[in-house]
Amino acid sequence: MMHGGSIRGILLLGTLLVTALMSSPSANAQSPQAQRALSLMPWASSVRQGSGELRVDASFTVALTGHTEPRLEHSVARFLTQLNRETAFPNLAKGATSGKATLTIHTDHASKEIQELGEDESYTLEVTTDGAKLNAPTPLGAMHGLQTFLQLVEPGAEGFDVPVVTINDQPRFPWRGIMFDVGRHFIPLDVLRRNVDGMEAVKMNVFHWHLSENQGFRIESKKFPKLHEQGSDNLYYTQDEVRDFIAYCRERGIRVVPEFDMPGHGTAWLVGYPELASGPGPYQIERKWGVMDPAMDPTNEKVYKFLDEFIGEMAKVFPDHFFHIGGDEVNGKQWDANAKIQEFKKAHNIKSNEELQAYFSGRVQKLVTKHGKAVVGWDEVFIPGVPKDIVIQSWRGQASLAAAAAQGYRGILSNGYYIDLGWSAARHYAVDPMGGAAANLTPEQQKLILGGEATMWSEYVNAQNVDSRVWPRSAAIAERLWSPQSVTDVASMYMRMNAESARLELLDLTHHSYYRAMLQRIAGTASPDEFEALKTVADVVEPVKDYDREKLAPAEPTSLTPLNRVVDAVPLESDDARRFGELVDRFLASSCHDADLAARLRTQFIIWRDNDAKLQPLEQQSFLVKDISQVSQNLSALGTAGLAALDQIARGTAAPADWKTSQTSAITQLQAPRAQLLLVPTGAVQKLVDAASAGGSCAK
Amino acid sequence: MMHGGSIRGILLLGTLLVTALMSSPSANAQSPQAQRALSLMPWASSVRQGSGELRVDASFTVALTGHTEPRLEHSVARFLTQLNRETAFPNLAKGATSGKATLTIHTDHASKEIQELGEDESYTLEVTTDGAKLNAPTPLGAMHGLQTFLQLVEPGAEGFDVPVVTINDQPRFPWRGIMFDVGRHFIPLDVLRRNVDGMEAVKMNVFHWHLSENQGFRIESKKFPKLHEQGSDNLYYTQDEVRDFIAYCRERGIRVVPEFDMPGHGTAWLVGYPELASGPGPYQIERKWGVMDPAMDPTNEKVYKFLDEFIGEMAKVFPDHFFHIGGDEVNGKQWDANAKIQEFKKAHNIKSNEELQAYFSGRVQKLVTKHGKAVVGWDEVFIPGVPKDIVIQSWRGQASLAAAAAQGYRGILSNGYYIDLGWSAARHYAVDPMGGAAANLTPEQQKLILGGEATMWSEYVNAQNVDSRVWPRSAAIAERLWSPQSVTDVASMYMRMNAESARLELLDLTHHSYYRAMLQRIAGTASPDEFEALKTVADVVEPVKDYDREKLAPAEPTSLTPLNRVVDAVPLESDDARRFGELVDRFLASSCHDADLAARLRTQFIIWRDNDAKLQPLEQQSFLVKDISQVSQNLSALGTAGLAALDQIARGTAAPADWKTSQTSAITQLQAPRAQLLLVPTGAVQKLVDAASAGGSCAK
Repeated sequence: MMHGGSIRGILLLGTLLVTALMSSPSANAQSPQAQRALSLMPWASSVRQGSGELRVDASFTVALTGHTEPRLEHSVARFLTQLNRETAFPNLAKGATSGKATLTIHTDHASKEIQELGEDESYTLEVTTDGAKLNAPTPLGAMHGLQTFLQLVEPGAEGFDVPVVTINDQPRFPWRGIMFDVGRHFIPLDVLRRNVDGMEAVKMNVFHWHLSENQGFRIESKKFPKLHEQGSDNLYYTQDEVRDFIAYCRERGIRVVPEFDMPGHGTAWLVGYPELASGPGPYQIERKWGVMDPAMDPTNEKVYKFLDEFIGEMAKVFPDHFFHIGGDEVNGKQWDANAKIQEFKKAHNIKSNEELQAYFSGRVQKLVTKHGKAVVGWDEVFIPGVPKDIVIQSWRGQASLAAAAAQGYRGILSNGYYIDLGWSAARHYAVDPMGGAAANLTPEQQKLILGGEATMWSEYVNAQNVDSRVWPRSAAIAERLWSPQSVTDVASMYMRMNAESARLELLDLTHHSYYRAMLQRIAGTASPDEFEALKTVADVVEPVKDYDREKLAPAEPTSLTPLNRVVDAVPLESDDARRFGELVDRFLASSCHDADLAARLRTQFIIWRDNDAKLQPLEQQSFLVKDISQVSQNLSALGTAGLAALDQIARGTAAPADWKTSQTSAITQLQAPRAQLLLVPTGAVQKLVDAASAGGSCAK
Repeated sequence: MMHGGSIRGILLLGTLLVTALMSSPSANAQSPQAQRALSLMPWASSVRQGSGELRVDASFTVALTGHTEPRLEHSVARFLTQLNRETAFPNLAKGATSGKATLTIHTDHASKEIQELGEDESYTLEVTTDGAKLNAPTPLGAMHGLQTFLQLVEPGAEGFDVPVVTINDQPRFPWRGIMFDVGRHFIPLDVLRRNVDGMEAVKMNVFHWHLSENQGFRIESKKFPKLHEQGSDNLYYTQDEVRDFIAYCRERGIRVVPEFDMPGHGTAWLVGYPELASGPGPYQIERKWGVMDPAMDPTNEKVYKFLDEFIGEMAKVFPDHFFHIGGDEVNGKQWDANAKIQEFKKAHNIKSNEELQAYFSGRVQKLVTKHGKAVVGWDEVFIPGVPKDIVIQSWRGQASLAAAAAQGYRGILSNGYYIDLGWSAARHYAVDPMGGAAANLTPEQQKLILGGEATMWSEYVNAQNVDSRVWPRSAAIAERLWSPQSVTDVASMYMRMNAESARLELLDLTHHSYYRAMLQRIAGTASPDEFEALKTVADVVEPVKDYDREKLAPAEPTSLTPLNRVVDAVPLESDDARRFGELVDRFLASSCHDADLAARLRTQFIIWRDNDAKLQPLEQQSFLVKDISQVSQNLSALGTAGLAALDQIARGTAAPADWKTSQTSAITQLQAPRAQLLLVPTGAVQKLVDAASAGGSCAK
């Protein structure tokens, strides 16, 4: 139906009624007056917006035509549940109908019984004022199209609407994943499941399950039960649970690739089976982080016999064609200290530990192949003569991937997508698997670059804060891996990521709600004003980046360290700080003439300046608040510095050089990490100081 | 251990070192400098605070001595899980130990196999710097004591602490419940379970399950399957699920009392079994609210045969001794229209429909007794000659309860605890089962008043917002029913309820987090500033009270009406509005001299005044925002009025009478409900107008 009376309709009539509008995310972002920008994420390959909208109300129905299968019917049922969450219509039809429907889905044929790399995931979605048609070659495409439809539903002028639009869409890369490290901190299945729901929402299709680490072996082995019994602190998944979880992922178009890291990163294996190690046992579950000495013995035939049986067992549990054997970071100390291994190296002319590891990798790869799987491994497994069906997961970067591709090997990129390192969404978004050296490959070679994976390493991540470490930033990575390479507008990305983040909350992801709960633990029974003061600090800080958290730790962190500090509670990217930065940029862009923006900045600075005094009673009360007392003082100082800059700008004369020097020096001090936290708005305040100074943009 | 260096310790040394401090919630609230007030809720019968605190860290252990049973061991395991949530220590001992422990629990003997009304629920908790001892006659008391301990854990100066304290505690009333109406809107079991967790946290002990209504029959009947098959829209609990849920409640010291409302409020029964009705069928599941005509036929022996079998079936499913037969609100229209029933009345000398209902009640009560249960019913079941073992649940009030008690009948109060009506926590808190006429009963008669129940009627309540309609206000009712009658300080109650509300979030209750999700649905893809503008309005409004929502409905509401409007999204009691009122009161108490408070009020008024302009783009976009456009305009007008009052006060002269008249008139207009919402801060702004006017407290 046509809602010509709606604001959207009227405004559109004023622009272009007949000609369809070719949309791009940035074009949308720049014309908010004409139409609300579509909050698609990932953005689609081709989006043509028309005029008018399709009403979504309690009479909404779905019809399935062409090929159908239970997975598709379940998808429709989940789609309607989610549509109910978006609209609150209580009795949406509980499944697919066969008559004329609001949304008709046509699927050409079945997808593979076991989901394969590179299956057709494309779809077209045509929305008119009368109804919507979703066409896809396979159920995978249909499922992606349903997610697109859900992203298009918005409260309109008279009811919930989907704008008239024609979308043709398919992924740029066939491998779009997230790796979850459940070894360092165990993550329960219900938490993983809601993260899988999030992956489905942004059209990711690989769940990479890092199941073994120094700190834990997380899956039941029936052949070698001491692996999970002694290596997991009783925190592991049973095989039945794993099978259920794989089915859950398949229902959402997501492959599950297991990883068993070897020969290093495996202390937890050795607790129950010390005979696999290169050094004498006994072994305990490791509590510390980092690269540890224990490694499997590449010279011991019993190790390969064990792995043959173990891989055989796991190959049956995990139906996916790919099997990840880790292979990263062996320090070689146990090998160096073992005379038998030294003898073996000499006898076989193995000149280095790298070569020894390559020997091990080669042996294990043969075992994986024997059990019908193809190997995935970190950069280190890429060794001369390795079979062409392996996939290299690169933590080293595009150059490494490109070098492999040049030799005919497939790869996926993770360098740049390490979501544990605290980078901004924009920084991850700028990383392209085809960037750097990969840009120079031939088209044939480029096809070998299959995509990428975000990696959720979990040193500082547990069930409570994991959602916040994954989301919403992974949506930006999902877009990089799905959308055309030309989709790069950062402002548009943030706008759409913000909208997607809200929708992810409807999937019960806790990336927003966890924050308040963790701050409350820190605050104890604070008064509302005290709590607000704590939040005022927490809202504009971020954990230190990259591996600085280890460097700046007050005491050596372990897997038993409670993750209850402010650094564990705050999101890795501060929305408020980013928006504050935008505010400053807009003020500077007005040559500091915009009085409203000046007033908003002033209000913010006053709140910061006065905040530390409000927080102090709570600092006296709670050790977890006291932890950030220096940060709080720094924020107050930053407020004072900001006010000084505004005052200087208001004066209308350029500040002298010594003023700039002293203010800059003060702000520089505030930039030093405290309590492993960065005070993010320092850079924006420095811009104001620069603008106020001689030669600055706002100085006369 | 003694943490003499802590602030708590030092300050206490400055007051009283040797003498223990006899605490009351209000005394605590008034001496925040000396010690943080304990955030116990419900407040305990006797609380003696000492000096120092017990450290709670990763070495925390629990020992069980004396009687033990699986339920107690499970309670300890859940206690440790919750303690982990409060502190984030990852590896708290996974259960009870037998050696010396941080917390030693001694239980004298078992409680009843099936939890009974009036069992001993008392406990004592003694916390020293060395450890804690929890003693209780029965597991029920021990379980309550564990909840008390959890409420005492706070982040202290050096770590998590429990203050040194001795608590003797037992409930004032043995029946402390919440009724959940799952008939009008179905509530899934996972939502009910987290609400049961909340009930346990505040020591409530009766889950009253209103399982049948005009709009739905919500439990599987194997004898009469058309009840759930045709009367539930396929939204019902299986008997296995119900048994699991009852076990879940028992583990938490909570009895489950089922209610099957009859002879009225039962259209859903009649869909499958129209032969039970007093009028000709067929019947459909009712979608409208209110008292409907259909009623069972009290003159039809087949009805009693049916109910005999049905009650027999349900009596086996629900182990509790009490069985609720509803009995409220029959309009008698079907009875009046049925000639056979009229004949029956004549033949049996039944003079009114009330008498006819009494006859029905008497017959059903006998059936309930036959199946080994005692009847609970609404006021209407209290009829001459009814057996003494019944319990009357009063929706009418204390007078009704007192009248029954005077005749030797037991009762529980629900009048005053209707949490669907949107009253403030303070208003519920002021209602005492021993208030009104009950205060004049003899002590023996008073013992017949067993307690009370909050009633969560669900016309405007569904799975998404139910937590917010129950919590945190029910914690205030829980305190009324548990704590000594003398515990009445409202400021202390709010402070402790606020703290308890935060802890309830750790139990995954969504009474806080749902709000953002529902506002996001209303806002669609708003900008952060637009969303904030929406929230600024929503934060200070409340749904209209009592039954005004029906009266002011834009269209007749039904069970299919989407609950997606602002009135469905906002909490029933606005924290922000209450705190704003406190701010105004403090300002007035300073004779309007406090410049800081004046500045805070001014800031708030400016935000309100300017807010409508910020919200308008979103009003144009979303029909759900447009719904509150008048409310938003009113809030801006209120901001303007507030600023005028502040300006007048700042002028230092009394405003003339006509100023007061015109301002008062303007504010009165803002008090009218719009979109079924009340703009709560109008009263506080009126106070400022009064204060600024001739004769006012701040006028010269």
